[in-house]
Amino acid sequence: MSNPTQPLHALKSKLLEIQHLKNAAALLSWDQETHMPAGGGQTRAEQLATLQTLAHAKFVAPEIEDLLLHLIDPATGLANTDTNGLDDAAKALLRETWRDFSRAKKLPSNFINRLERECSLAQQVWAEARRRDDFLQYLPNLQTIITLKFEEIDYLGYDDCPYDALLDTYEPGATVSQLQPLFATLRHGLLELLAHVRECASPPDDRILFQTYDKQQQLAFGELVLRKMGYDFNRGRLDLSAHPFTTSFHPTDVRVTTRVFEQDLPSCLFSCIHEGGHGLYEQGLAEAQYGTPLGEALSLGIHESQSRLWENNVGRSKAFWTYFFPLLQQYFPSQLGATSMDRFHAALNKVKPSLIRVEADEVTYNLHIMVRFEIELALIEKQVSVKDLPGLWREKMQEYLGTTPERDADGVMQDVHWSMGALGYFPTYTLGNLYAAMFFEQARRDVPALETDVQRGHLLPLKDWLNRNIHQYGRQYSSDDLLQRITGRTLNVEPFLSYLRTKIGDVYGFTSNS
Amino acid sequence: MSNPTQPLHALKSKLLEIQHLKNAAALLSWDQETHMPAGGGQTRAEQLATLQTLAHAKFVAPEIEDLLLHLIDPATGLANTDTNGLDDAAKALLRETWRDFSRAKKLPSNFINRLERECSLAQQVWAEARRRDDFLQYLPNLQTIITLKFEEIDYLGYDDCPYDALLDTYEPGATVSQLQPLFATLRHGLLELLAHVRECASPPDDRILFQTYDKQQQLAFGELVLRKMGYDFNRGRLDLSAHPFTTSFHPTDVRVTTRVFEQDLPSCLFSCIHEGGHGLYEQGLAEAQYGTPLGEALSLGIHESQSRLWENNVGRSKAFWTYFFPLLQQYFPSQLGATSMDRFHAALNKVKPSLIRVEADEVTYNLHIMVRFEIELALIEKQVSVKDLPGLWREKMQEYLGTTPERDADGVMQDVHWSMGALGYFPTYTLGNLYAAMFFEQARRDVPALETDVQRGHLLPLKDWLNRNIHQYGRQYSSDDLLQRITGRTLNVEPFLSYLRTKIGDVYGFTSNS
Repeated sequence: MSNPTQPLHALKSKLLEIQHLKNAAALLSWDQETHMPAGGGQTRAEQLATLQTLAHAKFVAPEIEDLLLHLIDPATGLANTDTNGLDDAAKALLRETWRDFSRAKKLPSNFINRLERECSLAQQVWAEARRRDDFLQYLPNLQTIITLKFEEIDYLGYDDCPYDALLDTYEPGATVSQLQPLFATLRHGLLELLAHVRECASPPDDRILFQTYDKQQQLAFGELVLRKMGYDFNRGRLDLSAHPFTTSFHPTDVRVTTRVFEQDLPSCLFSCIHEGGHGLYEQGLAEAQYGTPLGEALSLGIHESQSRLWENNVGRSKAFWTYFFPLLQQYFPSQLGATSMDRFHAALNKVKPSLIRVEADEVTYNLHIMVRFEIELALIEKQVSVKDLPGLWREKMQEYLGTTPERDADGVMQDVHWSMGALGYFPTYTLGNLYAAMFFEQARRDVPALETDVQRGHLLPLKDWLNRNIHQYGRQYSSDDLLQRITGRTLNVEPFLSYLRTKIGDVYGFTSNS
Repeated sequence: MSNPTQPLHALKSKLLEIQHLKNAAALLSWDQETHMPAGGGQTRAEQLATLQTLAHAKFVAPEIEDLLLHLIDPATGLANTDTNGLDDAAKALLRETWRDFSRAKKLPSNFINRLERECSLAQQVWAEARRRDDFLQYLPNLQTIITLKFEEIDYLGYDDCPYDALLDTYEPGATVSQLQPLFATLRHGLLELLAHVRECASPPDDRILFQTYDKQQQLAFGELVLRKMGYDFNRGRLDLSAHPFTTSFHPTDVRVTTRVFEQDLPSCLFSCIHEGGHGLYEQGLAEAQYGTPLGEALSLGIHESQSRLWENNVGRSKAFWTYFFPLLQQYFPSQLGATSMDRFHAALNKVKPSLIRVEADEVTYNLHIMVRFEIELALIEKQVSVKDLPGLWREKMQEYLGTTPERDADGVMQDVHWSMGALGYFPTYTLGNLYAAMFFEQARRDVPALETDVQRGHLLPLKDWLNRNIHQYGRQYSSDDLLQRITGRTLNVEPFLSYLRTKIGDVYGFTSNS
């Protein structure tokens, strides 16, 4: 084949049309969570199913297969050797499109339609059942989702372990056999740290965080932090939703949401920073690559590294609050006027095993993930049935965190993910924490003034570093390759544990040489 | 053909899929006006173009044509004589689907795509140009739209007058030759009424309406009126946008918008009632017919009759304010506590030629429409070019209303319609006023207690009458047939003029026997 430019161009234009459909579906979902009147739920489920089914059908259409087979060697999944006119980016675009195509082609249109509809419905039932703490109301919907996931695994296939088929959707290349030893080492380190924390005679007092804080003021402060992070409100929004999330319809239209409780300062604050980290990634993707894999986030683990880096490595650091705490005091003089920055920082970093993942501290957070990972694995390996999940949840929570939920609403029903069909998703949260620590360590090496910048409220140098090293590439490199390029190392838990030992040791007053 | 049920069922399921695409596009548009960050405009235009093009392509696909040709005689456009298994509603569904199909088939996919994109862009440029009062900035976009409209007319064809091709899009069957005499009689009656008004020595004082009114309180009162009208917030929303509008994604998810100015009480109030009238129509359509013409509003004229009936025949009546004025006084005691209901009612009905259509009183409103109708006619008959529109606008305003705008923002650029490609749309506003008067006259005959009900704030009997007589049928009857069924009469200006003479005569203190 002499000139690969023409079929590549044709391929990109087809991908663009599909992207428009997917983005319309994303808007339907965003609206469902933020603005849709309750009565609209049933039809919304059908509208979403139609759009996703159409997007899928257009993607697996013979015209796209023909174009890909002009450019790709299906044996290797890589660009043909005679596509020498193409640069590395174009070759990566083809490799990733072929990956997506090969996966999508395994899933029948009819399956996509059923899955989309059931997930949209299950989310609505879940929200209601959770409110009423009624797992039995939710059980049939969850059962349907799990059955659909078994069907999906059969379509997708796997080498080692059926759960790998699901994992691969969110974290390309990740496997159970890779995660299990990583998580074991991490668990060991975290439990050791937790033991130190438990020995501490005078833990931080975090009651100041749970005074009464005006909601409008909380939102205003959240928005201020987002602006300082470089989140562009001319290309983005901040809205309220029951569960904070980020969505994007294009790098020029990225939406983050938060929630706000009058008696809980950290909730809104860290939701804003966390979703802001996701939002910066989406705003930082290459506009010219919109519609192609190079214009998409690399994986959920890398996405989560962006949110957690901002939320924890930055947002729970002393450097950050050196600048922002005096500002926060101006927003809430009666609540915080008499508190020192050190006390406030210690309160933000208090370690305490609790029931709810999204409220967990940095030490216990990953234990919550391990609970979910083991339960999902047991489900997918058919060692447990859906109706027994509430009991298994309590067991695992006791085993990992030494605490047991009384209500299923605070237990097995706390997360939306299963209702979305997102099994295999939770492990990416822990991967995100590990990546974040490695990236942040490297950013501090590359930008020597970073700490001083943050102390002065100058967050743009960090944003620029992330734009330059991570965001701009989309899916050009694999997670492993990206990590290697940036840090020269492979994924490991040590940077994360070392970062935590230092900070928690400082807050709790023990030496961090364990 | 023995059994028409199967192809009819297949047709409806295809129409449903197309409806989902159209509703997704409607959500993209709603979001563009209410929530989209400014930077997202360019991509939004492309997303909209993709969805509308796809919806169009799916509608004119051979499978739909085949199904229709099984059921329809293309010579008459009516259901085949051997489709005796079908009831009248099903036959109407086929007739209207064939009408839509025949029109859609004349328009190339590529044309739809260009039109959608240009309209979405033109709306954004228009908003900016209007803000800056810069017609020249807007001129190239408007020129593009007009050129596209000429192209559209060529595709659609017409019998008499090219403008008829556009009119027919919004008001099936309406023609220039029907509108011109109707408008002439109406103009004569309105000018006569206006002459009486001008002779009046002590016109109502409406300054009380333009005091300072808290925006939140205005919105709360607007919402209260919507609830009393029977607008269902479990299946609807009220949002803010620069220009009030109504959109629907299904009878269970209907959205109205309003705007609110601190120094202008009528603006938010009557936007809420007006859009509420549209919203009730959309919420009142048959859910079971969703996706088919029988689940759609009949025409823009009939749609407007619903909004204007509520806004004017009800919302500017003494009966309405008998109940609502004491409530409004509680919302705004310092502004309205010392005013009588009669004075307030007179202020709401003050007649005064002005520059802005959406703020016009009921007497001069239709003169604004005639200005637009004549200008559009001149444009489409190539008697004037786009660049000369600002001048022609001033001339016509002087001729019809005796007033001339200084700024194009208050003149030729005041309405969004042309940017939306909606030429031929304005006459439906006047038709709506005429229909509204005829419907309301009949509702008062059919429901003898109606006036007393309204005086007590019981608006549901009127809503039910509208649901029963108009909303539930969708497009089952033509406008003419519907009017005939309900009132036993054909469209004429007398009920509207008579209603106005009585009310304005009462407010201005002259006898209404002209």
